Amino acid sequence: MDKSSVVHFARDQFLYSSSLESITIMIMAKKGDIAKMELLHGDPYDFEGPKWIHENIEMRSTGSDELYDYYRQTIRLPHLRARYAFRLTDHDGKVTYFTEKGFYEELPEVGLLFALPYLHHTEVFSAPEWVKDTVWYQIFPERFANGNKDLDPEGALEWGSAEPTPENFFGGDLEGVIDHLDYLKELGITGIYFTPVFHAFSNHKYDTIDYLEIDPQFGTKETLKKLVEEAHNRGIKVMLDAVFNHSGYHFKPFQDLLQNGKDSKYKDWFHPHSLPLDEQNLNYDTFGYVSSMPKLNTKNPEVKDYLLTVAKYWVEECGIDGWRLDVANEVDFDFWRSFRKTVKNEKEDAYILGEIWHDSMPWLRGDQFDAVMNYPFLTAILEMFREETLEPSRFAEKMTKVYHMYPHTVNKAAFNLVGSHDTPRILTECQGDIAKVKQIYTILLTFTGTPCIYYGDEIALDGDQDPGCRKCMPWNEEEQNRDMFAHVQRLIALRKDNPVLANEGDLLFVHIDPEVVMYKRESDEADAYILINLSDNEKELSSEEWQASELLYADSET
Amino acid sequence: MDKSSVVHFARDQFLYSSSLESITIMIMAKKGDIAKMELLHGDPYDFEGPKWIHENIEMRSTGSDELYDYYRQTIRLPHLRARYAFRLTDHDGKVTYFTEKGFYEELPEVGLLFALPYLHHTEVFSAPEWVKDTVWYQIFPERFANGNKDLDPEGALEWGSAEPTPENFFGGDLEGVIDHLDYLKELGITGIYFTPVFHAFSNHKYDTIDYLEIDPQFGTKETLKKLVEEAHNRGIKVMLDAVFNHSGYHFKPFQDLLQNGKDSKYKDWFHPHSLPLDEQNLNYDTFGYVSSMPKLNTKNPEVKDYLLTVAKYWVEECGIDGWRLDVANEVDFDFWRSFRKTVKNEKEDAYILGEIWHDSMPWLRGDQFDAVMNYPFLTAILEMFREETLEPSRFAEKMTKVYHMYPHTVNKAAFNLVGSHDTPRILTECQGDIAKVKQIYTILLTFTGTPCIYYGDEIALDGDQDPGCRKCMPWNEEEQNRDMFAHVQRLIALRKDNPVLANEGDLLFVHIDPEVVMYKRESDEADAYILINLSDNEKELSSEEWQASELLYADSET
Repeated sequence: MDKSSVVHFARDQFLYSSSLESITIMIMAKKGDIAKMELLHGDPYDFEGPKWIHENIEMRSTGSDELYDYYRQTIRLPHLRARYAFRLTDHDGKVTYFTEKGFYEELPEVGLLFALPYLHHTEVFSAPEWVKDTVWYQIFPERFANGNKDLDPEGALEWGSAEPTPENFFGGDLEGVIDHLDYLKELGITGIYFTPVFHAFSNHKYDTIDYLEIDPQFGTKETLKKLVEEAHNRGIKVMLDAVFNHSGYHFKPFQDLLQNGKDSKYKDWFHPHSLPLDEQNLNYDTFGYVSSMPKLNTKNPEVKDYLLTVAKYWVEECGIDGWRLDVANEVDFDFWRSFRKTVKNEKEDAYILGEIWHDSMPWLRGDQFDAVMNYPFLTAILEMFREETLEPSRFAEKMTKVYHMYPHTVNKAAFNLVGSHDTPRILTECQGDIAKVKQIYTILLTFTGTPCIYYGDEIALDGDQDPGCRKCMPWNEEEQNRDMFAHVQRLIALRKDNPVLANEGDLLFVHIDPEVVMYKRESDEADAYILINLSDNEKELSSEEWQASELLYADSET
Repeated sequence: MDKSSVVHFARDQFLYSSSLESITIMIMAKKGDIAKMELLHGDPYDFEGPKWIHENIEMRSTGSDELYDYYRQTIRLPHLRARYAFRLTDHDGKVTYFTEKGFYEELPEVGLLFALPYLHHTEVFSAPEWVKDTVWYQIFPERFANGNKDLDPEGALEWGSAEPTPENFFGGDLEGVIDHLDYLKELGITGIYFTPVFHAFSNHKYDTIDYLEIDPQFGTKETLKKLVEEAHNRGIKVMLDAVFNHSGYHFKPFQDLLQNGKDSKYKDWFHPHSLPLDEQNLNYDTFGYVSSMPKLNTKNPEVKDYLLTVAKYWVEECGIDGWRLDVANEVDFDFWRSFRKTVKNEKEDAYILGEIWHDSMPWLRGDQFDAVMNYPFLTAILEMFREETLEPSRFAEKMTKVYHMYPHTVNKAAFNLVGSHDTPRILTECQGDIAKVKQIYTILLTFTGTPCIYYGDEIALDGDQDPGCRKCMPWNEEEQNRDMFAHVQRLIALRKDNPVLANEGDLLFVHIDPEVVMYKRESDEADAYILINLSDNEKELSSEEWQASELLYADSET
């Protein structure tokens, strides 16, 4: 047994609360190394004389990647506290005990074991209950629908009359969204994620001018209020996008600092290294090296107050259900903790989603975000379908690795996407191969996490890296691929009717053919198998287990 | 190379800020597996065309334990952000790159590397500057000195006239401490850690009755104020002990709840499962299973406010310099975060020390504690000296493991102890072998971390597990081992005169003899070697390196 490959820490993805009275423990060990993995656990204060009272339970194997086997187990804590150790048996039957202090031949005294001193309810990660069943739909408002021509910015082009550029406008607005809520209801989605709608300069609106106003091109607060109401009437939640890491160039405090330098009362709102500001030589912190995106100083109580007011305002005023946070990883933890308290105080079941592209564990400990955008999912999908460099078995390993980087409670709320306003569209990534896109959407909609459909994907819209991926949504049915629409619609309905396909079920990969992605969703109520044939040929696959199942859906193209 | 034994996460002990503009990165790999460990790092946004600009620096080997080699390196971040990967070369010259997403033969695109998105000053762990040079002295007030006979509780015994029991009293008080501040000054200590002084029932005062009053047996607020002033005049800091996890049985809110059950306005101050409280069947949360130690509900804003008022009060009112927090691991993070803000707001350089016996990383991320009590140090010392089961090389491995469980910035503030009111005295652990105790104190006072002397150890007081370890301090010099006093005094002076022996220096173990503990403290200014001969025989040891050094101190007994 390779002891140096056994990895566990009493925190994060390795130890987390799965409910208010139970915890889940995860351990990883070198692939193939362990014959039996057991968990010994008990209350730290439970003794009969000198003997520590504890239980022994086998850990559940929950998957493997290239290097590791993963094991998880959930235990109840009647007194909300635990000490525990692992009992590892190798293939020769040799037993060793793994504790916080290292390896022992016999179980050492309880003080040397791993510890969960007390399970506090304030530390339980819990995304809002509704999130795990939500199917999201991302709208880029300037390109979804033009509902009110009177609001069109000067020089706006006829809808869909030109390719999108970084500068052009087509007049999409909030009324346009209201007009098509029935379309969305028909598709079956239950949550809309809007890229920014606040007053800003560009067509993407990520360069905020005023966080407390709706962009006049999009409508007014009244329009947003109506939109939220109408969406709620249709069982659809609404999430807005906020950029708290940096402001836009035309944000008043930044303009004041640019103009007044040392005399500006806003100098502590940003991170100037010296004054006056020098946009050429960039003597202030920015997003990347972009001089027009000055980094906000979220440690300044005035800035913090202002942004928290914003956070609260839109929940209170317009009843929105969640916040998606742009460049969330570059803002400080302390700010996000206050942000969470402010938002949840206003609406207990509001959803907080951070944009983070790398390992996000530090933001997902229950005190900051409910989820992050699952880019690793997108990457693995692309490697398998676009580049065809990833075999199904390696795809399974990659996803298994990702799902063991976080508590499983986190995975259920993960925001899964296969494209966004920041990436080429999935159809373009697949070089127009609609069959592939249908397969990808089948995975997206039957996977752990909450899926998000990028507007237009459901009718096979294409488009390259932005601005290409931000085309006007075609509303003429003849320009829509209705077959794709039906496919997505059907998958959403299946997910809704079979909670095991959403987040009631665990996900386990099964390997039966090198060209077939197959996984099992399993819950106490039901099991389901998903099979995706990556080859161009028909496959005869047999397995006693799943052959007996009822066929829920099949598509010859996929 | 065993890839599954390479362990790194972009957080905690593996990635931490070592100053406001630099970070330290740590990685561990299977012992003996890696010929060369390099760090590739750069700003995430630095490109020349498609090429990512990065630097390459070799990682410093910082020790080994039984299973792993550890490596650390510190890098400056001009823009406070970094992406990085490791370049590992094995003994056959084979190179592999280790990133957040796994292992690669070539360095993959920057988005797959480990990330530090932005180094926020609010997230920099920084214990107060004075702490790392402090030598602590722990006082159990009821047994240190009786300065005012008028305050003696009823039935108090003559000083030192009897063995300590769980119930007896000898009349120790705060005036007694004031009377002996010059003694402490002569010894050389620079901080006093007091076990609780608030109004309580028992002789140890951990069962608080009133957090806002000094125990009448010990004196008044005026006495404490005077003590702090007199201590400060002598360059001595004062730290008090607080029990915020649970109250004492006689705490008024608990008595109210006991008496009034459902009608008590204090029912949310604790964790009753049902009411009325049932002390026999324990239908409420407690410390361990002790019915007289009811757990406080720190999630209740009233309780939180009350305890934070306490936290602030003693800093503001009496000028204390720090808090030691009893059973700190069983109180929620959110409370400790507020506690830190409250205390630091009152006194920026106050010290916050948590009592935690197990892996304490989650409390040491900069948002909660400045240090925890280093019990693993005590355990390793005892295994080597008392049980003689730990060879110097294994001692080195154990301490190396402990020092890589935390950021090095944390290690420098760790509270090192070789005994306390909760453990047998070190002299008793060593079965009266004063030579061993002198060796142990030599290690304690030349080690990374801040050492604490348990009152009386410096004059070779003995005593078994409590109550035995809580004897009255003998003030008659004939009852004191003055040779031991001189030894400790000399070591403290050496530590003060040679910052490399305190926390200016790194610590590296050197193995030259199986019966000799040897380590090197090294800094830019100076190096120092510490040698401890565990055998009964004289040893001739030679090393070019250290033989050339000046001898600072030698003791034939040690």
